[in-house]
Amino acid sequence: MENTLKVIPLGGVEEIGLNMTVFHYGTDMFIVDCGLMFPEDDMPGVDFLLPDYSYILNNKQDLKGIIITHGHEDHTGALPFLLRDIAIDVTIYATLLTLGLIREKLKEYNITNAALQTIKPREKITLGVFEIEFIRVTHSIVDGVGLAILTPLGNIIHTGDFKLDPTPVDGQLMDFNRFSFYGENGVMLLLSDSTNAEKGGYTFSEKEVRRSFEIIFSKAKNRIIIATFASNIHRIQQAIDVAVQFNKKVILCGRSIVLNAQIAIDLGYLTVPEDTLVKLEKLNSIPPDKVVIITTGSQGEPMSVLTRIAIGEHKQINIVKDDIVIVSAKMIPGNERAIGKIINHLCKRGADVIYEKVSEVHVSGHASKEELKLMLNIIKPKYFIPIHGEYRHHASHAKLARNLNVKDDHIFIMHNGEILEITDEGAAINGKTISGRIFVDGKGLGDVKDIVLRDRRHLSQDGIVIVHIIMDKEHGTILSGPEIISRGFLVINNEEDILEKAREILEEQLRALNQEITEDNTILQAKIVSILKKYFRNTINRRPMIMPIVMEM
Amino acid sequence: MENTLKVIPLGGVEEIGLNMTVFHYGTDMFIVDCGLMFPEDDMPGVDFLLPDYSYILNNKQDLKGIIITHGHEDHTGALPFLLRDIAIDVTIYATLLTLGLIREKLKEYNITNAALQTIKPREKITLGVFEIEFIRVTHSIVDGVGLAILTPLGNIIHTGDFKLDPTPVDGQLMDFNRFSFYGENGVMLLLSDSTNAEKGGYTFSEKEVRRSFEIIFSKAKNRIIIATFASNIHRIQQAIDVAVQFNKKVILCGRSIVLNAQIAIDLGYLTVPEDTLVKLEKLNSIPPDKVVIITTGSQGEPMSVLTRIAIGEHKQINIVKDDIVIVSAKMIPGNERAIGKIINHLCKRGADVIYEKVSEVHVSGHASKEELKLMLNIIKPKYFIPIHGEYRHHASHAKLARNLNVKDDHIFIMHNGEILEITDEGAAINGKTISGRIFVDGKGLGDVKDIVLRDRRHLSQDGIVIVHIIMDKEHGTILSGPEIISRGFLVINNEEDILEKAREILEEQLRALNQEITEDNTILQAKIVSILKKYFRNTINRRPMIMPIVMEM
Repeated sequence: MENTLKVIPLGGVEEIGLNMTVFHYGTDMFIVDCGLMFPEDDMPGVDFLLPDYSYILNNKQDLKGIIITHGHEDHTGALPFLLRDIAIDVTIYATLLTLGLIREKLKEYNITNAALQTIKPREKITLGVFEIEFIRVTHSIVDGVGLAILTPLGNIIHTGDFKLDPTPVDGQLMDFNRFSFYGENGVMLLLSDSTNAEKGGYTFSEKEVRRSFEIIFSKAKNRIIIATFASNIHRIQQAIDVAVQFNKKVILCGRSIVLNAQIAIDLGYLTVPEDTLVKLEKLNSIPPDKVVIITTGSQGEPMSVLTRIAIGEHKQINIVKDDIVIVSAKMIPGNERAIGKIINHLCKRGADVIYEKVSEVHVSGHASKEELKLMLNIIKPKYFIPIHGEYRHHASHAKLARNLNVKDDHIFIMHNGEILEITDEGAAINGKTISGRIFVDGKGLGDVKDIVLRDRRHLSQDGIVIVHIIMDKEHGTILSGPEIISRGFLVINNEEDILEKAREILEEQLRALNQEITEDNTILQAKIVSILKKYFRNTINRRPMIMPIVMEM
Repeated sequence: MENTLKVIPLGGVEEIGLNMTVFHYGTDMFIVDCGLMFPEDDMPGVDFLLPDYSYILNNKQDLKGIIITHGHEDHTGALPFLLRDIAIDVTIYATLLTLGLIREKLKEYNITNAALQTIKPREKITLGVFEIEFIRVTHSIVDGVGLAILTPLGNIIHTGDFKLDPTPVDGQLMDFNRFSFYGENGVMLLLSDSTNAEKGGYTFSEKEVRRSFEIIFSKAKNRIIIATFASNIHRIQQAIDVAVQFNKKVILCGRSIVLNAQIAIDLGYLTVPEDTLVKLEKLNSIPPDKVVIITTGSQGEPMSVLTRIAIGEHKQINIVKDDIVIVSAKMIPGNERAIGKIINHLCKRGADVIYEKVSEVHVSGHASKEELKLMLNIIKPKYFIPIHGEYRHHASHAKLARNLNVKDDHIFIMHNGEILEITDEGAAINGKTISGRIFVDGKGLGDVKDIVLRDRRHLSQDGIVIVHIIMDKEHGTILSGPEIISRGFLVINNEEDILEKAREILEEQLRALNQEITEDNTILQAKIVSILKKYFRNTINRRPMIMPIVMEM
């Protein structure tokens, strides 16, 4: 089917994160974004997740390039892995700052098979049959773009992550004129950011945060510590601007924030007046009411600077009474308790902690309902795919589109890996390619298999009971044991009684088994598991993992 | 010290939950509330927590009674355990509905050593030297009270859980007049609810929810399912009232909601017009736009009705397009992801899901800052203990009190178990009694020890590696093994290589050990652990639990 355009979201349509969409027409393929996701609570020991990009590897001969809309890790973080696995030379197209951040990441992973091509808003590139124009959007990281993708079948708009900020910190407005231009000329397909599709009204401008900072800074009698994401250059810029306004020095603290700020300064995205930045070592030589520390740890990450400060384990920074700590970031769902604990620790040390719930020290980077409606009204797409979100966000976004006269059967709430095929005749979801999430763990650059996660969950619920027994191979009789030991098992007060009783019952039942069973190691193991499982369920209603170790001598 | 009043919060001042405060003067002691708490993420396998009430057991000869302010489980849930452990006859004082809920709970646990004494607002009881008056408050459960406690040293106000609802569903207003009466006459000590002490402004009236229900009910083309807490009788009443208004039938679904509603109906706290309630079995005989189902599962609990409906595992209730699901409850921090998943499932099945974030279908039961200030202004306490919250809530509440002229050194942010001693001379925290949290698990009615929780956390992070070896007892040489097996361990793609390599290194190093080590089982085990620990850390940066099993033959 030469005249078919395939649009395949490999990630980002069943979650916030893992953003990656394939556009494939004939022998020309390119992808938009290549993101990771941080693990959920039920994935213990996993460091992060990647989308399964087998489709790209299997079609690598068609790959004409990778476009990255902005520098957040949920859009860039899978690049080192994809590039390693694809093992051919690839060109990455992105804006200056986005590429600056990517360059560091690739260096860290020793990835050398990527050419980095800087693009600017309103510029166009050609990738096979596709022509792509970059369109400035406003978001919580500077230098983000959306895309107009010109295809043989019609034009596509991909918004990237965006909100409609009428007063962005860097003055770079969202380029409505170009979006309008394409809307006026007819757009076949819109892919639009759904992260805040459940939120009514408009998202506040980043400038609103400045007002809060000004109020807080003006009253500060002691040091101010601001925790935010290292990539939030706008926020860092505003903190620096207000610090300068109030004649304070700024200390950047933490590897990632120092690195990101340096990249942004070098590339001209962060403006810092001379003599404003001070090294952490100089902290004690500055009066406390003249210093602002900007750092990371807004999500309560255990090893972050903010956590170490909160529990009194940071070498240079000790909280004293009337220090102000501003958590200038969203509490990502699942992190509330960890963040709450950090806030408690900081309060106990006398800090005044200000966060989203108590003051306007954070605004979202994503468009709310009214902005999404505006985008739909400008673009007036024929087909629509809500992207960047879970099902409920897409359902909400789809409802907006329906109310704005996008036809119900022209709206596609997709699953990762599903293939939307578009021809002159129409558009339909037609099959599904390999998809899923790859768990990355430790130094592994590898994947944790599902079975391991299941085991960990099981272990964490009820612990493990290990049964050890040595059998006489020849006669199928017990030479030694059974012995039972446990870890993480339900241990109520009479723990030893329960294990001893279990041992007795097991021994009794094993001795009653016939030789056909006892001489077959596999059957014997299954028998041990079944006896103990039943016993623990009936007596104490628990289901530990039971692991029989049968040795034959 | 005969003339010393001890006030001891045994729980509820370091968490939301576990509410329990001891008042002890001479040989007279009573307690206010006796609550449990549901576990946090890092307590796998724990069903719920209790405060350590050893102080009460150790002073049980002085116990004159237990007062319960309202029927929520964080105020009542530890009663069966305390009553079982104290093993003497005790009188519980509470309002009619609160006692109705407690009676069920005690029946369930076969507790018979409690006399239940119904009290009414504005009534007084005498417990030794103490006289206690009950004062009506408004909260998210009906029939709540605060307390005026008259002691030889002065009067104490304990607010219980409250908010200032000017239009409560049952018309039972908060009794400002009595609070004012005591405020006017001088209050020595105020203990006040801090749950929402970080929230600015006023908490909305429960009646606001009715307006949202009316809008939703008026537009519903299909069935309406409302999930809330079984104890939220106000909410259930409002759902029933609006259902009647729109000529719909109501089905109560789920054991706890049926039980609680029945208790409330029997005691006159829930008014249901005849022919409104319908049995679940009749569901299919009613037109879909004429039915409202009220159920539980607002926190995404895995076995709840709502979860079973969401994943299509409920026998009678199947979601179809345009069904409306209202999650009419707060998302308790830590539960957001679980709730989010349920919402996704419901959306996928075509339901329109409405929850706190998208519409006003829930209001809090706790006073916000302006209401807390009003209480402080009415009571004008000499001393102040913020209760019901974590440190950050208390720090925020303390700040309000300071701004309203409570002296800084008269405000006590306490830890569980700390003893506030009040005499004619003054008040000061003087020592600490036994305190802590007891983990309750399974059928155990017993406690899970810390070590077990630590083990479970460890297991869930990196899994377990079991080393098995049989030694010749006499010569200290290896007879068989070492063999290595693992569960839940980091398994990157080359898992078997890593374990095999570990086995080789272990064997090599064990063979090199001298007999002094190999013949001592304990030392040998420690050696095995240290070799493998180092190996896994260096090669794959992981720390599995390592469990050596050394058999001697």
